[in-house]
Amino acid sequence: MAKRNAFYAQSGGVTAVINATACGVIETARKHKQRIGTVFAGRNGILGALREELIDTGKESAASIAALRHTPSGAFGSCRHKLKPMADDPREYERLISVFKAHDIGYFFYNGGGDSQDTANKVAVAGARLDYPVTCIGIPKTVDNDLPFTDTCPGFGSVAKYVAVSVREAALDVASMCESSTKVFIMEVMGRHAGWIAAAGALAQVDGKGPPHIILFPEIPFDRDKFLAKVKASVAKDGYCVVVVSEGTSYADGTFLADAGTKDAFGHTQLGGVAPTIAAMVKDSLGYKYHWAVADYLQRAARHIASATDVEQAYAVGKAAVEFALAGKNSVMPIIVRKRAKPYRWEIDAAPLSKIANVEKTVPRSFISKDGFGITKKAREYLQPLIAGEDYPPYENGVPKYARLKNVLAKKKLPPFR
Amino acid sequence: MAKRNAFYAQSGGVTAVINATACGVIETARKHKQRIGTVFAGRNGILGALREELIDTGKESAASIAALRHTPSGAFGSCRHKLKPMADDPREYERLISVFKAHDIGYFFYNGGGDSQDTANKVAVAGARLDYPVTCIGIPKTVDNDLPFTDTCPGFGSVAKYVAVSVREAALDVASMCESSTKVFIMEVMGRHAGWIAAAGALAQVDGKGPPHIILFPEIPFDRDKFLAKVKASVAKDGYCVVVVSEGTSYADGTFLADAGTKDAFGHTQLGGVAPTIAAMVKDSLGYKYHWAVADYLQRAARHIASATDVEQAYAVGKAAVEFALAGKNSVMPIIVRKRAKPYRWEIDAAPLSKIANVEKTVPRSFISKDGFGITKKAREYLQPLIAGEDYPPYENGVPKYARLKNVLAKKKLPPFR
Repeated sequence: MAKRNAFYAQSGGVTAVINATACGVIETARKHKQRIGTVFAGRNGILGALREELIDTGKESAASIAALRHTPSGAFGSCRHKLKPMADDPREYERLISVFKAHDIGYFFYNGGGDSQDTANKVAVAGARLDYPVTCIGIPKTVDNDLPFTDTCPGFGSVAKYVAVSVREAALDVASMCESSTKVFIMEVMGRHAGWIAAAGALAQVDGKGPPHIILFPEIPFDRDKFLAKVKASVAKDGYCVVVVSEGTSYADGTFLADAGTKDAFGHTQLGGVAPTIAAMVKDSLGYKYHWAVADYLQRAARHIASATDVEQAYAVGKAAVEFALAGKNSVMPIIVRKRAKPYRWEIDAAPLSKIANVEKTVPRSFISKDGFGITKKAREYLQPLIAGEDYPPYENGVPKYARLKNVLAKKKLPPFR
Repeated sequence: MAKRNAFYAQSGGVTAVINATACGVIETARKHKQRIGTVFAGRNGILGALREELIDTGKESAASIAALRHTPSGAFGSCRHKLKPMADDPREYERLISVFKAHDIGYFFYNGGGDSQDTANKVAVAGARLDYPVTCIGIPKTVDNDLPFTDTCPGFGSVAKYVAVSVREAALDVASMCESSTKVFIMEVMGRHAGWIAAAGALAQVDGKGPPHIILFPEIPFDRDKFLAKVKASVAKDGYCVVVVSEGTSYADGTFLADAGTKDAFGHTQLGGVAPTIAAMVKDSLGYKYHWAVADYLQRAARHIASATDVEQAYAVGKAAVEFALAGKNSVMPIIVRKRAKPYRWEIDAAPLSKIANVEKTVPRSFISKDGFGITKKAREYLQPLIAGEDYPPYENGVPKYARLKNVLAKKKLPPFR
């Protein structure tokens, strides 16, 4: 078969291990130089293709590419640009195919969440329709862990580990302080629709016991009275209460807790997250001293405490994406299949992109304890192996030494896209 | 000299390494069994002495005590109880001395910040006055790094490292996202009066360049217009802006930024920190998409990313405290003396407690850049060695395995204190 170039792009919120996937893609492609020429990376994701801003990864040394494995965030830039449906506006798809054609790109690797898998699928369709067949492989990535078919999504295990470690540490802190000071600690974590990250807070427990006392899931409608009663009971029993709250926690009517208070004294939009909202509730109703934390980007960027399992899987899906493409597969996404629970054994398989789009995997009710504030044994067995192992980056001057790429753009061949 | 027992207590906000100091105290005392009998630890700090709740650390195995070195927070409990001035109410001091007498305690080790050093000094005075001489040694601990004489305060180096690592990681994240999404990231860090922790954010920079673009210090009055202009300029130049803000940042009139917005739409006290306040300002004035994080307890509990230098110093001051006591020193605090800047060399000396009380070491103007938004070379040279080295705790099931003590209380000998 003829040698073709490849295009790889990162999409949506970045993670601690999406670059490990990029590393898997590029290193594997470099092993097949007779089939794959240059791997171009989109500067700022798919925008790079639309703007014909193609980073020539061939300009990067083997050492730089290898360093991507331990570098968080998106080394080529990501974006939140969503292509319009083809029926509404085929121009973006046509442009993509033109750019692919101009640079002899025969392989499209799209590294992202559910929307990106949908896009990858549509690009395959567009290529066929425009008489420029392109092999389109979606590669899973999302801290939210909400993609179907795959056992887990690369990115999730590391956030889960960060949350478990942080909650364990902060819980020890509040336990030290509770006698005469802070009694309630609230940690807000990501997860707008799915509570997987919040669930991982339970892995902070020792032998399944102790803090966090309460986990608030987007899947469980928030009941103020029940919540406050549980806080009170935890403080009465242990002297303190640790709460992990998902940013997506909402009332039964669907209102996010974080949106419930809307304006401050000056009429400005209140930008507080759910943690301060919950803290105010605790203070106003129970009078306890509190502290709260919002980890925000820190959680998904925390490569310093990444899960070794997650890093390995992130690399593996990148490698598999290239191997699938070379094996003639199209419109598929590598998935992780759990072969055995304990010890955890997994392998890579392929799932069709068409079946992945628009399916969101939330935390099943059987994973959440009866009272809605914790996780079940089943959930713990699922989550535990995903945070296993440490994979420390190298350090220099006390901070991690992360890859810095040259990111040289290939010469443009087309007029600008308007 | 006669063999006497010792009392050790943890005071104020705990840190990632205060238990390393406890480890240094107890292990060193155990090496001098002919001079020091039991080391009692106060349950919940000094409250443990007042309530005669004395933890018998002799009941803990050598392995458990050794594990304190890698365990964050206060293993015996801390407290925010401040003894009243002796002139106003001598009862608490009298009670302490009674408890010490009842348990043959001849050594008092008080591990805390400035207030605790003052208290340790007063206990020495009270003991002499009540004809029960007790050797009182203060041991430095504070993430705020605001004690005089000592090169740094154990606890600070690890928070500094946490902040530097987190800012480096989050900055890579926002750099990936800024083209089509988040342009400003704000991280709030501790430091009500001193900006040492905020200053450490600058160690995230590579070769002293790049993010964070702005550091807001409590030492520099906040100038809204100047701040917003700098945010705008940073976004124009780099595409994004990373801000590290100290919780104590205030306007020229002394009002904390965090207190400026006071009530939400429902009339509740707004519990937002300074990060959401700054975020609202950026959004309202410049319209940029933003993200913000408040690390709160996570930063000071983050033993998983502790500075090896800090751990070593924390242990060393605990060890020195016992050695000073045995050498007949009284009313002193072990301090860290910087002997050489590069490579960093330090040794332990003693400073008199009477000179430490009520002196707060803030960041000198010469450490802050001319525009007030960064640090100078001098500051960087001071800070750099304090975050050097990693000292990872052991892991089990994907999370750090921290010490869990039995904390057995010694039998009470006195009636309750009222």
